[in-house]
Amino acid sequence: MAHKSTPASDSRRVPTIEDVARLAGVSTATVSRSLNATGRVREATRKAVESAVRELGYTPNFGGQALALNRTNTVGAIIPTMENAIFARAIQALQETLAAQKVTLLVATSQYLPEREEEQIRALLARGVDGVVLIGNRRASSAYALLNARGVPFVLLWSAPDSSPFVTIGFDNSAAAIDVTTRILKKGHRRIGMISGLTAHNDRADDRVRGVSKALTDNGLELAPQDLVECRYSLAEGEAAAMQLLQRQPRPTAIICGNDVLAAGALRAARALGLVVPGDLSVVGFDDIELATAVFPPLATVRVPHRRMGVAAGEYLLRWIVDGKRPPSLTLPTEFIERASLGNLCDEAAD
Amino acid sequence: MAHKSTPASDSRRVPTIEDVARLAGVSTATVSRSLNATGRVREATRKAVESAVRELGYTPNFGGQALALNRTNTVGAIIPTMENAIFARAIQALQETLAAQKVTLLVATSQYLPEREEEQIRALLARGVDGVVLIGNRRASSAYALLNARGVPFVLLWSAPDSSPFVTIGFDNSAAAIDVTTRILKKGHRRIGMISGLTAHNDRADDRVRGVSKALTDNGLELAPQDLVECRYSLAEGEAAAMQLLQRQPRPTAIICGNDVLAAGALRAARALGLVVPGDLSVVGFDDIELATAVFPPLATVRVPHRRMGVAAGEYLLRWIVDGKRPPSLTLPTEFIERASLGNLCDEAAD
Repeated sequence: MAHKSTPASDSRRVPTIEDVARLAGVSTATVSRSLNATGRVREATRKAVESAVRELGYTPNFGGQALALNRTNTVGAIIPTMENAIFARAIQALQETLAAQKVTLLVATSQYLPEREEEQIRALLARGVDGVVLIGNRRASSAYALLNARGVPFVLLWSAPDSSPFVTIGFDNSAAAIDVTTRILKKGHRRIGMISGLTAHNDRADDRVRGVSKALTDNGLELAPQDLVECRYSLAEGEAAAMQLLQRQPRPTAIICGNDVLAAGALRAARALGLVVPGDLSVVGFDDIELATAVFPPLATVRVPHRRMGVAAGEYLLRWIVDGKRPPSLTLPTEFIERASLGNLCDEAAD
Repeated sequence: MAHKSTPASDSRRVPTIEDVARLAGVSTATVSRSLNATGRVREATRKAVESAVRELGYTPNFGGQALALNRTNTVGAIIPTMENAIFARAIQALQETLAAQKVTLLVATSQYLPEREEEQIRALLARGVDGVVLIGNRRASSAYALLNARGVPFVLLWSAPDSSPFVTIGFDNSAAAIDVTTRILKKGHRRIGMISGLTAHNDRADDRVRGVSKALTDNGLELAPQDLVECRYSLAEGEAAAMQLLQRQPRPTAIICGNDVLAAGALRAARALGLVVPGDLSVVGFDDIELATAVFPPLATVRVPHRRMGVAAGEYLLRWIVDGKRPPSLTLPTEFIERASLGNLCDEAAD
């Protein structure tokens, strides 16, 4: 038993699976089958067990759960941050998919710190999670070694499968960035700046920068060092980065942003400088989170398959946990969303 | 032992605390002291243990951690949602406070569903968390019974202490709403509408509605049923709710919103109707999340003590877990943030 044991709880006896079985009038095997929702329990029985569980305030302890199918019915996810809702929709979809099978999702946030993510992987494994969800595919081999040493199923979201030996459920960040850049070039823009999230330890940000750079090079242009500013994913840092790009003469007529939060910051910078979007400056984001249509003008951006990644991660893990068969990776499409923040190059702006 | 056990891991032996002790050349007691960061271990020893842990891919199992101070060094938090970042900053602050003591935070989201929250409390207790953080103070007694049965320290954020027999770290939602309403009345507004989150199972939303209603009544006005629209906390639902309020003749000159997301939706509705904010309509939010200054005009709103609640929750729980002494509740101040979305009543708007 590893539940918290304080003076308070030492003074009372913790209910066991036997207590639940006795109260529900069934066998302990039936109780654990019922609690693990393996579906071989009649509804009436399940109800009896559930009411006994509630009445006794029983919580399956590690031993108990471990006996039942070697499962704890929890999955752990580690995301870089909960701020600006980048990962919220995918995590929501993941949780709903797992909850439908009575599996609980526990989330930790690493603040984009590889060391913290590794501590959290260790902590989740120690809590006996049945599966793990991570964001991105670039991290120290020691992190993967931890997961493999336990044989715990894990999937990597937000990145392209082909760049990882592990099961990845995501999209091609570089291809999406190439597509965005090509569209901006088609609108006549030639002076293009970029605001990116910090690329260290962030393969998604890095791949987006590579994509923009490649598209420019393929069109006889270049993403010069001074055309690229890296900063944290915050409105204030996005605004400051845009200010820096817009101080240059001649200034860029379009700014590609690593996500919608940075783009919202760029809109604020444009407003502060008296620049009209898109007349004087076009701004494009990435992610298509709710913020993209909360700002004015609404942001042209890249819609990432948030919900589909979350649902697929849940379905893949649930199957993998049960049958032990490693699923193939999955690449999902992204979609460019045309909105008012992207316009054709105006002559004034081009001067 | 409750770690996941698949064919893969069955085929290898899982490293034990004894293996770590042997490789590090120390006692198992030293290993567990070191892993639990109780500070009675020399740095060199800690380093030796940590490298052994890494080399072996050892993850403390429940039994092992349970032996060590009866602690798993994990705290669980259940928040209603990760969308629109309402709770993100407090959770971030909570996590940083815990991480400084090598305690990992695991977060679950209940989607504002009481039954799901109760399942998640049960799941967190089953994973052996040392402490629990919940949002709000109105829930079924069965949920509190679960926590009390285990004697696990828990704190309630976002609500006023005086309305709960448990340890609450939050603020007075009703008083904050009274303050907002009074300020709007001082600006000359008399036709005031409100968009609230769903008040069922949400004491914060409910208290904010009560506050607005009380302030209006105290000033000889009333919040009539048709002046109040409840909806989910989303931009689209906030926009639709504002449309509904703004269809009425005469239309309100000010709309108080239950949070900033709803207020951003109201700004979008005003724009769609060709109404100028604040000239034709004043809009006030609640929370002061990043979105409040991403929109235009920036939102007058109530700044909630996000970070202070998170830090206090972490410090209170860490102390409580160690000394077993239940801390007192804490009420923190909120602050009204004056921004351009709130203006004086203009004659045209009053007509």
